[in-house]
Amino acid sequence: MMEMKEIMEGERILIEHHLEDFFRQEMERSSDEPLMVELLEALREYTLRGGKRIRSILAIMGYKAVRGDDLDRARKASISLELIQSMLLIHDDIMDRSDERRGGPSFHRIFQGLHERRGYLGSAERFGYNMAVIGGDLAESLGEKVLAASGFPPERVVEAVRVQSDMIRDTGFGQVFDIHSEVRPSWSEDMVEKVQKYKTARYTLEGPLHIGAVLHGAEEGQLRALSGYAIPVGIAFQIVDDILGFFGDPKRGGKEDLADIKEGKRTLLITKAMELAGGEDRRLLMETLGSDHITVEEAERVRGIIRDCGSERYSRMRASELTVKGITALEGADLEDDVVEFLKDLAGYLLDRA
Amino acid sequence: MMEMKEIMEGERILIEHHLEDFFRQEMERSSDEPLMVELLEALREYTLRGGKRIRSILAIMGYKAVRGDDLDRARKASISLELIQSMLLIHDDIMDRSDERRGGPSFHRIFQGLHERRGYLGSAERFGYNMAVIGGDLAESLGEKVLAASGFPPERVVEAVRVQSDMIRDTGFGQVFDIHSEVRPSWSEDMVEKVQKYKTARYTLEGPLHIGAVLHGAEEGQLRALSGYAIPVGIAFQIVDDILGFFGDPKRGGKEDLADIKEGKRTLLITKAMELAGGEDRRLLMETLGSDHITVEEAERVRGIIRDCGSERYSRMRASELTVKGITALEGADLEDDVVEFLKDLAGYLLDRA
Repeated sequence: MMEMKEIMEGERILIEHHLEDFFRQEMERSSDEPLMVELLEALREYTLRGGKRIRSILAIMGYKAVRGDDLDRARKASISLELIQSMLLIHDDIMDRSDERRGGPSFHRIFQGLHERRGYLGSAERFGYNMAVIGGDLAESLGEKVLAASGFPPERVVEAVRVQSDMIRDTGFGQVFDIHSEVRPSWSEDMVEKVQKYKTARYTLEGPLHIGAVLHGAEEGQLRALSGYAIPVGIAFQIVDDILGFFGDPKRGGKEDLADIKEGKRTLLITKAMELAGGEDRRLLMETLGSDHITVEEAERVRGIIRDCGSERYSRMRASELTVKGITALEGADLEDDVVEFLKDLAGYLLDRA
Repeated sequence: MMEMKEIMEGERILIEHHLEDFFRQEMERSSDEPLMVELLEALREYTLRGGKRIRSILAIMGYKAVRGDDLDRARKASISLELIQSMLLIHDDIMDRSDERRGGPSFHRIFQGLHERRGYLGSAERFGYNMAVIGGDLAESLGEKVLAASGFPPERVVEAVRVQSDMIRDTGFGQVFDIHSEVRPSWSEDMVEKVQKYKTARYTLEGPLHIGAVLHGAEEGQLRALSGYAIPVGIAFQIVDDILGFFGDPKRGGKEDLADIKEGKRTLLITKAMELAGGEDRRLLMETLGSDHITVEEAERVRGIIRDCGSERYSRMRASELTVKGITALEGADLEDDVVEFLKDLAGYLLDRA
């Protein structure tokens, strides 16, 4: 376990070096265009501001799992996932109208602030949102370029581009489910797992592992084993994240307390509570879900309901089951032993955060 | 000239067949997920709704120009550009808060309407914008996949992905300039040409020609000749477009009359008028630029000023000069004769629309 964390910390540092190098080069290419440098610098700061680099690390692990040995090249390619992540976070913050991300201003807020400080004409808010739409699109295109310029054999790069494109597609699909979960009156546990499967499992775990693996020409059976691990562990990861976001320290998740309730998100925790809670409690949940105006007393009662109705216990149990299922999928797979150990430890770590 | 139009019409039909095939396959792949099918169907309808397919056609011409002969495969790959175009239009309409596009509702309006009809919870407007953020990101990822799945030799596909990524980057750069032109008090002719160079010339002409050309392994000199044509002709195209958008029939450009004035866009037409117009006229231009409330009388006066101060004449002359420059760049280039003829005719046609 200790070793897993050390590996992650070591990889994180190397990945961030590659990110710095990449942005330095991109800014040099644009050095005669100050507005472009400004946008790239904002994207650099935003991307490097924080995060565990879990997606990049998983790409490197996917590559190692199928016995790839040009690790430095794999790291260089893996930053593609941090750029795609920036795209998704920047656009997510537009959708949620979030002011903060990773302990700093959200991307649109950076440019809103700049507009205000410089006394530009027109609406600062709109300027910020528009720069964030463009900034996200730019990040996506840079993510594609990183793969294209990685120097791996072209047929493998083409495969990685295809996998990455499907990953973004599936993430979009998860977001579509997510958005619909906020606007539809009813929502089932089955639908909740679908959001988690597409938005987190495919995106955070399976996609990165596969991208790394295909860069070393992984075989079908190897990709299947990685999926068998990634999908259940990814769903468990999201369940735990939702619990943390509900009860946890807002500084850790970077999200406001009860943010999911206020946004009306149907997480497993909330959907299950709706099913288990009694009449009065259920009515309160329905009322507060998606409401911007929750009193301190209501917030306390909502937290109490979730805890007492058995929804939290159920969610934790479900996350454990899924983690076991994921770990089991790695047994006997044709994958590098060290990486299998790492992935098992990682699954345990993700589960125990809560 | 007649022939150029016939070629374009024939290619347009074939491109749209490929687009239909592509969307049919993507929808089949998602057939068990109705929400995804709904998003893809909206993207299909939006993409196929109209447009001359000029970017796809130019990609095919770039491929032919360097003597590529698998035209059917080139057409299949070229639809990538229509998907990227959808991404940019969808996100542009979010930024401009536009209600219409190509004679139908803008993408966010499609989903806003759907929200209203189905009586979903929450804000229909916000639902629409959020689905459009996702829809645009999806279109970009599909555009990448089309190239990756085109079946051209992998080393050429990788090069095309790289060129396409740079094209999107440069387009973003043009948009950044564009947005800044609306919020900064002063703006020069030099800056205007920069917006045009990045936003239109690189994107509409050079990028597509290069993508097609590298799919057949174009050489450096061939790419340079295509750039020598694309950049000036692209700038001329934008200058003419701005004139059309100012005086022309709003049905043709799909834009509201005087939309550029209301948005505060600094086109060459407007920037030059600011320079040439006398004190009183100049003041009126400054006042109306970026203003939502222009009276009928003011609009008539603004149009009169632009016409009379010499700015329109200057813009047309500049567009002609640039067109000649672009056509000249094709002389003696190592490019297929038929394509050279086509490109010359196209440049003339783009200039004479006004």
